[in-house]
Amino acid sequence: MRIALLGGTGDIGQGLALRWAYDSDHEVVLGSRDPEKARAKAEEYETELDSLGRERKVTGFANEMAADRADVVVLAVPAYHLADTVEAVADRLDEDTVLVTPAVGMGRDDDGFHYNPPPAGSVTALAVEAAPEEVPVVGAFHNLAAGRLADLSAEIDWDTPIFGDDEDAKEMVMRLADAIEGLRPLDAGGLANAPEVESLTPLLINLARENERLHDLGVKFQ
Amino acid sequence: MRIALLGGTGDIGQGLALRWAYDSDHEVVLGSRDPEKARAKAEEYETELDSLGRERKVTGFANEMAADRADVVVLAVPAYHLADTVEAVADRLDEDTVLVTPAVGMGRDDDGFHYNPPPAGSVTALAVEAAPEEVPVVGAFHNLAAGRLADLSAEIDWDTPIFGDDEDAKEMVMRLADAIEGLRPLDAGGLANAPEVESLTPLLINLARENERLHDLGVKFQ
Repeated sequence: MRIALLGGTGDIGQGLALRWAYDSDHEVVLGSRDPEKARAKAEEYETELDSLGRERKVTGFANEMAADRADVVVLAVPAYHLADTVEAVADRLDEDTVLVTPAVGMGRDDDGFHYNPPPAGSVTALAVEAAPEEVPVVGAFHNLAAGRLADLSAEIDWDTPIFGDDEDAKEMVMRLADAIEGLRPLDAGGLANAPEVESLTPLLINLARENERLHDLGVKFQ
Repeated sequence: MRIALLGGTGDIGQGLALRWAYDSDHEVVLGSRDPEKARAKAEEYETELDSLGRERKVTGFANEMAADRADVVVLAVPAYHLADTVEAVADRLDEDTVLVTPAVGMGRDDDGFHYNPPPAGSVTALAVEAAPEEVPVVGAFHNLAAGRLADLSAEIDWDTPIFGDDEDAKEMVMRLADAIEGLRPLDAGGLANAPEVESLTPLLINLARENERLHDLGVKFQ
């Protein structure tokens, strides 16, 4: 499977890129608005993987090129760049491309972080609005701590709720999640269930802020 | 500590009553709008505890009597009964009573359950509005599966995020939560963080609905 990680140079994109490259044989392609940055990061990830005894090819391109011929396009960008990013790659997507959105809309005040969805109702709904109609959208990877995910020496034991209205597309993303060691995909139903998944992320941040022994939190449902 | 469980005859109230009576030496008092029902349930819980080799006194009263002289009053009632219940017991509460709210506002559609807070912003905010000003309110026990909690033969390994603006009151509720075996209290900050905790409950229900091997879900942050 060819996975394009748009925004694959930072935050959650880095963790997903490294884990897929290390734990699976899926082809990992980084996308960025700046192709030079994507290429440099791809080389950096290759070097890191190599140092861990895992010789993998990771490539980097401008977002449009990265999305081209990808089976799965992960929108690993901040919520406020989501619509722009989808529009930039829209003519590279078709009904055989699965669009995956892990982004969350958050604000913060003195008490902590709060779920602050866009007027569309959820960040996922924003992605659905921006995507060409025939392209299936799946929500996944919202509740993973980016720092720990990107640290290949750190073990993880986390769940990731995955939701979408296209069952085949959802099934495909669940298999991709399952390919990451220590990550268990859970079916969270349809796209209308997005807010309940997205709003878990600010809770994880609040708990890490308030409890000294906890940091880089994920979640396990049991 | 004297714990009054208003609505202690059903759902989450039953589980908390049985676990505190079994796992701790705190005094457990059930409240109900119907004192006869509270008395009958108290007897039922005593019999169950006795059958497990744990001889405990559990009493049942009308809500007003149950709240009287309690150190902690748990509002284990549905969100739509919360304001009425607080108002009914208001003159039994003072600044030394901690009011605990585990209730969540939810709706459902074809896709699943959704967080549907009252106009106050959260069910917790509703409790704050209804309570006398000097009474500290703490949110806790939102994300526990009632059925498994009430089954003393079932082991649990769950976290419960606890939040409030009165640090002493929050600390007291965290100790009470810690007295239940397998339950880990986590500090979730102040009252403004209520929506992020309350909205986790519909996600737990959605995941249990959509994943065959999962049921009666709680959550662990790790």
